[in-house]
Amino acid sequence: MPVDAGLEDVDAEDFDALMLPGGQMNPDSLQLEARAIELIEDFDEAEKPITTICHGPWLLVEADIVEGRIVTGWPSIRTDLENAGGEVVDEEVVIDGNIITSRKPDDIPAFSKALINALNS
Amino acid sequence: MPVDAGLEDVDAEDFDALMLPGGQMNPDSLQLEARAIELIEDFDEAEKPITTICHGPWLLVEADIVEGRIVTGWPSIRTDLENAGGEVVDEEVVIDGNIITSRKPDDIPAFSKALINALNS
Repeated sequence: MPVDAGLEDVDAEDFDALMLPGGQMNPDSLQLEARAIELIEDFDEAEKPITTICHGPWLLVEADIVEGRIVTGWPSIRTDLENAGGEVVDEEVVIDGNIITSRKPDDIPAFSKALINALNS
Repeated sequence: MPVDAGLEDVDAEDFDALMLPGGQMNPDSLQLEARAIELIEDFDEAEKPITTICHGPWLLVEADIVEGRIVTGWPSIRTDLENAGGEVVDEEVVIDGNIITSRKPDDIPAFSKALINALNS
């Protein structure tokens, strides 16, 4: 996949929203990239939409922005979301302020619609 | 790999110890097997050695046996171990009662030695 820019080349202020895809291995590796976690924190501080699906919401735990928020995600990360202080629900898409989360590939239509709505609002 | 028995065919009382290997994907899948999590709980209740390395200690979070214990694991699961109430340290092998944890493949010699010692004690 062609890459437009590296993590060091971008700032949250240059974008309208952040979309963190899932996959079992991708969020596991991204967690160890300090600049990736910092970017998530920056988007949240700017109250810009952060949308993430499947295993992606696991990254929100590492960015320490789950506490007190309603979220969802792939079943294997739900205990971790709860232990991070999140309220976990089992819905195709969950919108809590600027945080938009979904559970699995089947949720992509609802997930995408929520992201588009957030960008248009 | 040949499999000796399925999860439904075994009980903690028939074994002296439990070894949970790592890998990015294996513990992620095992978390969703209720019988696997139940077995971990049974080994802990019987105070039998539970040894696990790399991503494996993530399963201890799902079994809810991390609280108040000193543990280690692969860097990407350390925040989850902490959020589950564990004290996370960065050592090649950590022995806290019946729980033995290690961080990565390089730790295997120390990890194996700790398991053998536990079985001989």
